[in-house]
Amino acid sequence: MRILFVGDVVGRAGRSAVSDNLPGLVRDWALDLVIVNGENAAGGFGITEAIYQELVDAGADAVTLGNHSWDQREALVFIERAPRLVRPANYPAGTPGRGAALIDAKNGARALVVNVLGRVFMTPFDDPFAAVGRELGACPLREAADAVVVDVHCEASSEKQGLGYFCDGRASLVVGTHTHVPTADHQILPGGTAYMTDAGMTGDYDSIIGMQKDEPLRRFQSGIPSARFEPAMGEATLSGVAVETDDASGLAVKVAPVRIGGRLSPARPSFWGA
Amino acid sequence: MRILFVGDVVGRAGRSAVSDNLPGLVRDWALDLVIVNGENAAGGFGITEAIYQELVDAGADAVTLGNHSWDQREALVFIERAPRLVRPANYPAGTPGRGAALIDAKNGARALVVNVLGRVFMTPFDDPFAAVGRELGACPLREAADAVVVDVHCEASSEKQGLGYFCDGRASLVVGTHTHVPTADHQILPGGTAYMTDAGMTGDYDSIIGMQKDEPLRRFQSGIPSARFEPAMGEATLSGVAVETDDASGLAVKVAPVRIGGRLSPARPSFWGA
Amino acid sequence: MRILFVGDVVGRAGRSAVSDNLPGLVRDWALDLVIVNGENAAGGFGITEAIYQELVDAGADAVTLGNHSWDQREALVFIERAPRLVRPANYPAGTPGRGAALIDAKNGARALVVNVLGRVFMTPFDDPFAAVGRELGACPLREAADAVVVDVHCEASSEKQGLGYFCDGRASLVVGTHTHVPTADHQILPGGTAYMTDAGMTGDYDSIIGMQKDEPLRRFQSGIPSARFEPAMGEATLSGVAVETDDASGLAVKVAPVRIGGRLSPARPSFWGA
Amino acid sequence: MRILFVGDVVGRAGRSAVSDNLPGLVRDWALDLVIVNGENAAGGFGITEAIYQELVDAGADAVTLGNHSWDQREALVFIERAPRLVRPANYPAGTPGRGAALIDAKNGARALVVNVLGRVFMTPFDDPFAAVGRELGACPLREAADAVVVDVHCEASSEKQGLGYFCDGRASLVVGTHTHVPTADHQILPGGTAYMTDAGMTGDYDSIIGMQKDEPLRRFQSGIPSARFEPAMGEATLSGVAVETDDASGLAVKVAPVRIGGRLSPARPSFWGA
Ligand SMILES: [Fe+2]
Ligand SMILES: [Fe+2]
Ligand SMILES: [Fe+2]
Ligand SMILES: [Fe+2]
Ligand SMILES: [Fe+2]
Ligand SMILES: [Fe+2]
Ligand SMILES: [Fe+2]
Ligand SMILES: [Fe+2]
Repeated sequence: MRILFVGDVVGRAGRSAVSDNLPGLVRDWALDLVIVNGENAAGGFGITEAIYQELVDAGADAVTLGNHSWDQREALVFIERAPRLVRPANYPAGTPGRGAALIDAKNGARALVVNVLGRVFMTPFDDPFAAVGRELGACPLREAADAVVVDVHCEASSEKQGLGYFCDGRASLVVGTHTHVPTADHQILPGGTAYMTDAGMTGDYDSIIGMQKDEPLRRFQSGIPSARFEPAMGEATLSGVAVETDDASGLAVKVAPVRIGGRLSPARPSFWGA
Repeated sequence: MRILFVGDVVGRAGRSAVSDNLPGLVRDWALDLVIVNGENAAGGFGITEAIYQELVDAGADAVTLGNHSWDQREALVFIERAPRLVRPANYPAGTPGRGAALIDAKNGARALVVNVLGRVFMTPFDDPFAAVGRELGACPLREAADAVVVDVHCEASSEKQGLGYFCDGRASLVVGTHTHVPTADHQILPGGTAYMTDAGMTGDYDSIIGMQKDEPLRRFQSGIPSARFEPAMGEATLSGVAVETDDASGLAVKVAPVRIGGRLSPARPSFWGA
Repeated sequence: MRILFVGDVVGRAGRSAVSDNLPGLVRDWALDLVIVNGENAAGGFGITEAIYQELVDAGADAVTLGNHSWDQREALVFIERAPRLVRPANYPAGTPGRGAALIDAKNGARALVVNVLGRVFMTPFDDPFAAVGRELGACPLREAADAVVVDVHCEASSEKQGLGYFCDGRASLVVGTHTHVPTADHQILPGGTAYMTDAGMTGDYDSIIGMQKDEPLRRFQSGIPSARFEPAMGEATLSGVAVETDDASGLAVKVAPVRIGGRLSPARPSFWGA
Repeated sequence: MRILFVGDVVGRAGRSAVSDNLPGLVRDWALDLVIVNGENAAGGFGITEAIYQELVDAGADAVTLGNHSWDQREALVFIERAPRLVRPANYPAGTPGRGAALIDAKNGARALVVNVLGRVFMTPFDDPFAAVGRELGACPLREAADAVVVDVHCEASSEKQGLGYFCDGRASLVVGTHTHVPTADHQILPGGTAYMTDAGMTGDYDSIIGMQKDEPLRRFQSGIPSARFEPAMGEATLSGVAVETDDASGLAVKVAPVRIGGRLSPARPSFWGA
């Protein structure tokens, strides 16, 4: 099975990178499953229903979220009618939406998509290890799902790696989001799970984590907010990770970074003839 | 000028990667300046005089530190007789050692090496922007230094990027350390400064940030320390970044990641005929 | 019912204040229920079985803990045979001990004692509101317990106050611990629960949170640890809060601070003829 | 000399407590110096010029700030023409206003008022110990000031106590603000400086740190903001600390808490015949 995960889409520049590139990638790479992190898709802060639909129309089979899930308050409502939208699994009981979804992939396979928030250096929610453990236990790879993808939305690399090993052998892919910078540590863990600490953002890299530089730079130096953060509008890099799984085991056999367009050094999975 | 920066060396595995590889790289790539972050070189925690000497003997022209600077308390003493050892510049007045050093490079050029600690999600020290600004002002690129390298030891990608833009045009290279994961966002900023959010660690990547996995994994789940952290001992990846500068301007003309050995996908600068 | 809660006992000085004063207070004030926070009783860090027994022998009906619960690792073991020892209720599943205990008070009444850790500015555990809500629901005041005391071990005053209002009408007393400074905001909340943001420590107040001043003062200024923290050994103040409940409702009718000995301004509940 | 320090005034309820009570206290207690923390005076967030003037008119000789200094952006401007307004001394170079001011007290004496922000659990600014040390050195007690008052605006009790001992013998009073809860640890430190960990807020104590309870309570449980924080409007308690100094030494001879009106247990300095 061919899986593409696309990191945090930031603002209009990021959305253009998705709509311009994703349909072609789905076709050219014969992708079976596409997951897009959409927590910053609406002007850098949250997601609207129209944008969710736009991402799905471009080829996303699932859209994941993070600490910005509810920045657009309509998300608290429309998530109930958006079955492909997955918010962190360790939110409190009673939170709208779902923390894991069993999705029909493009090839008809069943794909479990889980989203979870870290607790190190972040507003704390319930234990992400326990939350992910419950979701993996409720819908085990091979028995109930042909592929399992876990989006670990964390600040600390240690916590992401911890979650990677925790899921190793039970997920097809564990991929980090939230730092908005792609890492180069993509690998297949000893138990067969593909892993990458951060998928990077899909946004303009002439920026500070996707935002125009002036205000954050001023704020770092003065300690005083003087304007809103606005997303940078230069050409975005679509950034993410490509994984090929073994159909029998659901585990990863190949993993490679994806970086298309914009300022970053380009990367495409050689194993899909790109 | 040819510059190699090597990210946080972790324990014996990391030190072996340096001593096994660095002398050959200096020779094969005709390196002019080598900087190694050594904050985790001694069993994962700090640095000893013997290890500092070992890194210098292997080819390091300067060794930088970070939040683990003083984990080995002898560093507070021997730093005074270790002119190539650079600790964070934003430590309090009266701290032993220096936060910036003007080093003779292998080719006789003068290289300013600065180390600074971030404040976001870290034990806070004085303003890193002001501290770096002072060092760059006191020893300007071209006028007083042929190359300027700033090691920004931060947790948050936003703060590293902020420091990158803050130095843009005034440094040859701004490179992050501390997360122990290499990023894939190496680029030359608009003003001519090479930039990479994190150099990655030089250590065993079958680990949690260089440490054997069992104890951190247990601790994440139980909240209870049950053993010391011990560095992982599998084959390390030497991880860092290579920069070629223009001799007239001191600014970067080429930048590429370096990953040699161990579990990570290998990378060498194509522009040095590697 | 007459309840005394004694704040974090710190080291030998704190233990002496308990053993010297508590037996007399139990007798003179005809106390029905005494709860002592013991998380710092062993040299400032955790608790041993011998010290637990010493506190019980001095009159404690229950001993609560906090973020230092396991600093003495024997506590992980002996807590299973220490029915009056209560650790935070929001620790992960599988943690030794209990987060709430139904205790026989001195007058034969049933007292529910709950301990919980905050998450603001602390190592995060699971949601303290949900955890406390479960305990209060499982053993409701009047129906299953004649008194309910909740020790909210938090850093932030906002989180403590939030837990106070959350429990208002369902607990006899919600009292904070952890900051090691007594507050003067004791009051009966609108629903009848006695509340005080922090009981203060039972320790030597010529100190920094109970520890000898030199090392923390040096560390604040240099950023460098240079010695272990050692508990201050001057005369301690026994610090806490006294509550009288209505036997029918289990709610509070009177609340007053208690400060005996040491450097702090003395305070005793006038309503017990002290 | 008779000094009154009034803790964080929160919103209209807090301002009423000041205007209703302060003029009478100045007269009845023959106060020489009154300092009011005003960081939350404008609807809980910052201060306007009109409110600053209102506090001065009510009797404040100086108004101090904190982490909310600039919530009302006009404060960045009018502070330059408000000589009695003191913002944290450890803000970056170039910040409007002043971190210390030498004020004419009501009795003609010279009073140095210093404000500083802590770094533990707060957005970090420069070293508060170094900043306060500079201010005390530039205007020493007795030589250049008849009284010295330092408002340490910190979250952590340890940092406040550290600053207290750091100033001991060099200040008349070191008093904490920011937690919005008065502490009961007022004392004269060994070197003669009056100290109290927190002055408490001047606001409605049927609240969460001065704000109406519903929104913070909901937010603690759901993790989702659903409305703005609004100041609580019930009767406020004027909360602070009273200090009498020795005219020759400028050091404290008496210290007592002050709590007037509202829900908290009342307190007045017995030594002023109250
Ligand atoms: Fe994001
Ligand atoms: Fe995020
Ligand atoms: Fe490191
Ligand atoms: Fe580090
Ligand atoms: Fe404690
Ligand atoms: Fe504690
Ligand atoms: Fe405040
Ligand atoms: Fe504040």
